[in-house]
Amino acid sequence: MDKIVRINLSDLSSKIEPVPAAWVGLGGRALTSAVVASEVPPACHALGANNKLVFAPGLLTGTAAANSGRISAGAKSPLTGGIKESNAGGTAGRMLAKLGIRALIVEGMPPEDKWYSVHLAKDAVTLQEEQELLGQGNYALVQAVQARYGKPVGVISIGPVGEMKMLTANISVADPESHIRSLGRGGLGAVMGAKKIKFISIDDTGTPPVMPKDAAKFKEAARIFAKTLLDHPVSGQGLPTYGTNVLVNILNEAGGLPTRNFTSGQYADHDKISGETMHDTIVARGGQPTHACHPGCQIQCSQVYNDKDGKYLTSGFEYETIWGMGADCCINDLDDIAMADRIMDDIGCDSIETAVMFGVAMEAGVLPFGDGKGVVRMLKDEIGRGTTLGRILGGGAAQVGRVYGITRVPVVKNQGIPAYDPRAVKGIGVTYAMSTMGADHTSGYAVATNILGVGGHVDPLSKVGQVELARNLNIATAAIDSTGMCLFIAFPALDIPECLSSLIDMINACFGINLSGDDVTALGKSVLKTEHAFNVAAGLTKEHDRLPEFFSKEALPPHNVLWDFTPDELDSYWNF
Amino acid sequence: MDKIVRINLSDLSSKIEPVPAAWVGLGGRALTSAVVASEVPPACHALGANNKLVFAPGLLTGTAAANSGRISAGAKSPLTGGIKESNAGGTAGRMLAKLGIRALIVEGMPPEDKWYSVHLAKDAVTLQEEQELLGQGNYALVQAVQARYGKPVGVISIGPVGEMKMLTANISVADPESHIRSLGRGGLGAVMGAKKIKFISIDDTGTPPVMPKDAAKFKEAARIFAKTLLDHPVSGQGLPTYGTNVLVNILNEAGGLPTRNFTSGQYADHDKISGETMHDTIVARGGQPTHACHPGCQIQCSQVYNDKDGKYLTSGFEYETIWGMGADCCINDLDDIAMADRIMDDIGCDSIETAVMFGVAMEAGVLPFGDGKGVVRMLKDEIGRGTTLGRILGGGAAQVGRVYGITRVPVVKNQGIPAYDPRAVKGIGVTYAMSTMGADHTSGYAVATNILGVGGHVDPLSKVGQVELARNLNIATAAIDSTGMCLFIAFPALDIPECLSSLIDMINACFGINLSGDDVTALGKSVLKTEHAFNVAAGLTKEHDRLPEFFSKEALPPHNVLWDFTPDELDSYWNF
Repeated sequence: MDKIVRINLSDLSSKIEPVPAAWVGLGGRALTSAVVASEVPPACHALGANNKLVFAPGLLTGTAAANSGRISAGAKSPLTGGIKESNAGGTAGRMLAKLGIRALIVEGMPPEDKWYSVHLAKDAVTLQEEQELLGQGNYALVQAVQARYGKPVGVISIGPVGEMKMLTANISVADPESHIRSLGRGGLGAVMGAKKIKFISIDDTGTPPVMPKDAAKFKEAARIFAKTLLDHPVSGQGLPTYGTNVLVNILNEAGGLPTRNFTSGQYADHDKISGETMHDTIVARGGQPTHACHPGCQIQCSQVYNDKDGKYLTSGFEYETIWGMGADCCINDLDDIAMADRIMDDIGCDSIETAVMFGVAMEAGVLPFGDGKGVVRMLKDEIGRGTTLGRILGGGAAQVGRVYGITRVPVVKNQGIPAYDPRAVKGIGVTYAMSTMGADHTSGYAVATNILGVGGHVDPLSKVGQVELARNLNIATAAIDSTGMCLFIAFPALDIPECLSSLIDMINACFGINLSGDDVTALGKSVLKTEHAFNVAAGLTKEHDRLPEFFSKEALPPHNVLWDFTPDELDSYWNF
Repeated sequence: MDKIVRINLSDLSSKIEPVPAAWVGLGGRALTSAVVASEVPPACHALGANNKLVFAPGLLTGTAAANSGRISAGAKSPLTGGIKESNAGGTAGRMLAKLGIRALIVEGMPPEDKWYSVHLAKDAVTLQEEQELLGQGNYALVQAVQARYGKPVGVISIGPVGEMKMLTANISVADPESHIRSLGRGGLGAVMGAKKIKFISIDDTGTPPVMPKDAAKFKEAARIFAKTLLDHPVSGQGLPTYGTNVLVNILNEAGGLPTRNFTSGQYADHDKISGETMHDTIVARGGQPTHACHPGCQIQCSQVYNDKDGKYLTSGFEYETIWGMGADCCINDLDDIAMADRIMDDIGCDSIETAVMFGVAMEAGVLPFGDGKGVVRMLKDEIGRGTTLGRILGGGAAQVGRVYGITRVPVVKNQGIPAYDPRAVKGIGVTYAMSTMGADHTSGYAVATNILGVGGHVDPLSKVGQVELARNLNIATAAIDSTGMCLFIAFPALDIPECLSSLIDMINACFGINLSGDDVTALGKSVLKTEHAFNVAAGLTKEHDRLPEFFSKEALPPHNVLWDFTPDELDSYWNF
């Protein structure tokens, strides 16, 4: 039976509830946003007792559908001040789904200064005090928790950065090899830290696989769906071969690779950090150039990156991290960046927010551009330990800008702008401005159509068609984020008609319903409108749907382009 | 001839312009807000080239009217994100008025990393590079500037905190004894620092006094006006005897003295920091219990506070500072607080914002409650020097709350809540919530009618009548802030009919016009609406016109009262 598990820290209680009618048929982001919108007062302090942290597997998570293993987390964001959903792979989503847990809602605050963990198993919810693993990094924590239970339980956890409630704090989930994936953005780890939950462990022993209502129809749809992933050049070849880091050279060529704290669109040392270089390095050192971040992933864009001695260093080493520490901070040593990535996973901070933050900190003179060893040291000794400097840096790009009086601070709604310069890739700029999540490339990945030629082509340097493109992608993404699917299924979905139809067929077969493509679009719209209404009630306005001033004053080389959308053009995004 | 002086740092030019028709008849806050609203893009970065810093003496500043010597500064605030006006006494306002300068507008940003000073004299505006006095505190700077010119020129300056663009930075003006008064709130000193203006000196040599058009009528009105100041018990007796610090015991008795970071309304050691104790201490040490902060002040609520050896320590030692460092930080040693006050004046940071910030920092464990020596050390060695910790603390209460993940952070629109708990003095709470300035007691001092019995009586613990009270006081204050009058003339103005009528007579006699009381009210309304429209355009919403969540969740002893206004009740403030 599908259920909601509710943990209330204020009275240290737990409850298992049926899924209310309003939430039936929702999963992932649609469900976390529905819960937050209906139960969290928009004006509450995001680190206070009235915020709630919601975990939800997607609609198809736990089934045999390819790439369906994502887990969403939602809350009011302490970084943006608005609603937040972030999702990741790992094993926890699938296990929650197998336990029939549609959502885990964590609410209240402990009456005493004690820390807790949550254990979820077949018909059992346990909330217990936790002392032993406080202060631990995520790598050691996952090992210890899995050792404690004697099996590869799912683990959702925060590192020291989350315990210290810094606004870069993310939430980690263990992947099938007990390595780390991240629900990265918006400071959700600080919300978990405020609730004093160090980790959640999940044991799906004794649960059957999630069974579709119409197994035959599901199987056929799943086969077609999986084939479209293989057939598309991006999900079938580009991503599996080079991972997301294939984008370094592509964006550099396009002049949209933000460099030296967003002062140029090209990085002289791009070859040293490119996906091609990374691939060869991984192969030469006996790492894994392809790797699945969750069971059932077919794209396998993750990888395992070994150090010079062939020892595991990090995995899930993404383009945005490599761009941020690389081009934006001018660090041209992939090993330094990999070490930074490992430490960020371990201490539990968002690698995009942290990299953008370091770009601003370098501009402020906290450390020199290009100082990879300095970044590694500050991650470990300052942020990870919560020193005074670490507290500043751990607050993210906007905070560092405020503390040091810097005006070139690439954030929207306080959240750091990722790896595609909005002046040279204007469609993604519209997403940054308008997303309910703050600057977030994943919420409407217009780079696909601006740069990669997926879903047609819209000139990245022209304003024409960008608002419509971003709107449509944000709507589609809100729906995809609700299915439990990895966002990268959007590549075939944009180009191969059978991809989306087979995805809808899988959902229909799974639940015995009859959704149309229009229904899926309507779901995406509804999710965005729910989130937007929460943000408005929390005090975010049209004026927050804007890029920082400097993008419209400083032309970006090499194209020497400005951000030039009018307020009315941007606001027309909401005309749906 | 009245004129506008414009300094543009971007091309290092200066211009003298006639007063445009739209600004004729405006002074002080009405003028600074008009300039900011018409010339500053609301969405600009407050520390960037597009913000403007405007200084304006009041309408009557420079005349013989009692208490008319205030100077206003305005800009977009880097602290609140909205419009800001702050005013102070000192000699600069009078000198600007005598030079015929209705407004000094500082705009742009220097193309190079160089600092400047501005010198204003009869028919001369000089912008010159400044090196010698960089890094100096305000006390030494005023001495040096006056020595440089060989006379007591007016000085408007920033200390190191402003140079470092921290958000607590204020702007200082020299008083008649070359001591320091402050345009305190909203981080205006950071705006001046961003423009790289270390100081502005003003020499009124050779200028005649400001002559009213109808000298006889003016003289008679000024006489009546001055008499009302003497006749009212607050401006005629209470303030001259004990200064503003007379309020410690009064607010403690009322249960509205925010204590230990706003967790109680009474402070056990209130007697040790009270105005009565302070008066006796000043007298015993040969200080001055009464003192005028600007020429022509008749209330003389300022004082000179000497140290144990009878040596000058500080002046302009106000209730809000003493409350903040005293009750709110639980520091019960008046000498420690006086030393803190002196250092804040010298390094140039707002004593309210800084005191509220220390209350939050103490809750965060940065230093213990009651640690007066620690506060003095941190002001001097951390904030004043811009160390890493100093950068955190120098950002004010909201920043410290964010950096350390604290939820009890008493701010509105990021600006620290002053010395009257809004739960126990509900009228001032409405002002905090609704003021265009962020939490600012001076923008509508409902304490007068809630606690002091001035202007009638409205029960401080009841919601009844508070919104109307706050609205009327904010409207009246916006007008008073435009005249150049000290706000304390509001006490007689609320109780003695001749006060306001003689004030209007003085304005009419001065300019040869025929304003009525309704015109003055209309001016106040117009100022508030201009400011509010700027704030809305800058992204502030109704949701920002609210007190922090904890005020409605944590009952305040001893009355155990909550903040309990509904959104609609608060929003009705704008029904005019």
